[in-house]
Amino acid sequence: MLRVAVALAWQKKRVGGMRMPSTAARAVHALKDENCPILISPSLVSLDLPDVWASNPNPHDFPSAHKCSNEQNAAIIDGKSMAEEIMSRIAFEVKRMKESIGKVPGLAVIMHLDEAKILDVLSLEKDVDGFHPVNMGNLALRGREPLFIPCTPKGCIELLIRSGVEIMGKRAVVIGRSNIVGLPTSLLLQRHHATVSIIHAFTKNPEQITCEADIVITAAGVPNLVRGNWLKPGAIVIDVGTNPIEDPSCEHGYRLRGDVFYEEAVRVASLITPVPGGVGPMTIAMLLSNTLDSAKHAYDFT
Amino acid sequence: MLRVAVALAWQKKRVGGMRMPSTAARAVHALKDENCPILISPSLVSLDLPDVWASNPNPHDFPSAHKCSNEQNAAIIDGKSMAEEIMSRIAFEVKRMKESIGKVPGLAVIMHLDEAKILDVLSLEKDVDGFHPVNMGNLALRGREPLFIPCTPKGCIELLIRSGVEIMGKRAVVIGRSNIVGLPTSLLLQRHHATVSIIHAFTKNPEQITCEADIVITAAGVPNLVRGNWLKPGAIVIDVGTNPIEDPSCEHGYRLRGDVFYEEAVRVASLITPVPGGVGPMTIAMLLSNTLDSAKHAYDFT
Repeated sequence: MLRVAVALAWQKKRVGGMRMPSTAARAVHALKDENCPILISPSLVSLDLPDVWASNPNPHDFPSAHKCSNEQNAAIIDGKSMAEEIMSRIAFEVKRMKESIGKVPGLAVIMHLDEAKILDVLSLEKDVDGFHPVNMGNLALRGREPLFIPCTPKGCIELLIRSGVEIMGKRAVVIGRSNIVGLPTSLLLQRHHATVSIIHAFTKNPEQITCEADIVITAAGVPNLVRGNWLKPGAIVIDVGTNPIEDPSCEHGYRLRGDVFYEEAVRVASLITPVPGGVGPMTIAMLLSNTLDSAKHAYDFT
Repeated sequence: MLRVAVALAWQKKRVGGMRMPSTAARAVHALKDENCPILISPSLVSLDLPDVWASNPNPHDFPSAHKCSNEQNAAIIDGKSMAEEIMSRIAFEVKRMKESIGKVPGLAVIMHLDEAKILDVLSLEKDVDGFHPVNMGNLALRGREPLFIPCTPKGCIELLIRSGVEIMGKRAVVIGRSNIVGLPTSLLLQRHHATVSIIHAFTKNPEQITCEADIVITAAGVPNLVRGNWLKPGAIVIDVGTNPIEDPSCEHGYRLRGDVFYEEAVRVASLITPVPGGVGPMTIAMLLSNTLDSAKHAYDFT
């Protein structure tokens, strides 16, 4: 086996510039400090910092006098109903599969274990979350296609398309950059030819950037982070946040709030997902859709 | 072997929502059109469209009266000199390796062959370009680190760091979204905690978005695309473009122009790379640095 590194010659001029012998000859040059690292760039893992967002307003505090850009009422994207339609179709396919080959899809859920280690040994064909680096790399790279697209981002795109939203050429802002939602959502929006900006806890002026967006997808995990005045009038808002807020009056002692200050945003946006009943049901539908695709592939069933 | 798909339980509430039996029971629902696809979202590969940029000004036309935001002169980032220092250190390491274990790094360049097929069979440990989907996925995913970072993006970051630029919290615009430069550059800037916007040929108002950036990295392959009035005064400009322009007065019959209208930009930016002599030499240095790392890993040499 040849122990040589390999570079694909994507630029002829670069090939011409790679002359190892002449580079090796540079060893005669004295070095100022031989103990210095060759590169100054730090390790990427050492750069991993937690995204700690600035404090958000009290979720129980809904100032009625908050000034929004205008008074337009947004149409509500009914994620629950869209997800139910998809799940009905999946159920039909499962039934057809059972009747044809006597098999049905199975879904195993793994908890109590290191995510990275599991992903490293997981068969790509079973990675219905789409979290494996190969699936993520293939999502990022044009000309390639992942076996599975992560469920929440896929659900967001499906919600937009089913709502008649044209993504191409739109200015999109993704708030949050988690591996499971923010990152793949930004990659997927780019594949759909949106111009994407990614906002995170180190962004200095998130409201200013968000205000320029035609499409806002927020997955920060901070209740009421996105105020009405963060939005451009007529913006389309997909709220991935499902933040439990204590509320003794509710059946389970809590209720869910999104990342978006809904009561304000609904007066500014043209289209918005509710929480709950928006992205959540679509995420489940996408997981089942990916599971069905995985089973069809495993049993070579079309 | 269990033929089940696997989902990592990253949200307890999602686990609670996944009930395959109840979903299967939905088969009793009549479907409006059984022949419709379950999802409306199109295949990602079908979305791959070429980036055709709008026409750019004649590269020979440098209007002296072009109005720039101010008259500040940018400092020039000397990529050639920085790359030479790095290559000297690499050469020293190669010499040390040869004297210690009698081995030197080797670099094979692959041309005339399908890039995707080569990447699929290439050992990750030899992917010094960092183009393999696993390397790209690990570059995208926080908490992971690729074995190799693509050379040009890595060179851009090294240029910024060696020039004393603080990336964290800065607004960065990447112009161009190629797999080899634009995409990995945007991912790398995010890992360094910049707020990144990615501009491509489908972006409607590239100059407006670029004008907001503290750091502009352009890799569109369009000579003189970025005019002086695209830049915020004091912006830092890294020009990856190396576009050959016919010029009979030059030795080889052509000269290189960047994506940036240099004569204009140098009056607006605070820091800028020249073309040639900026990113190009650093790309070569990064390729050799990755090659050295690959050889050290292969021979377990530290």
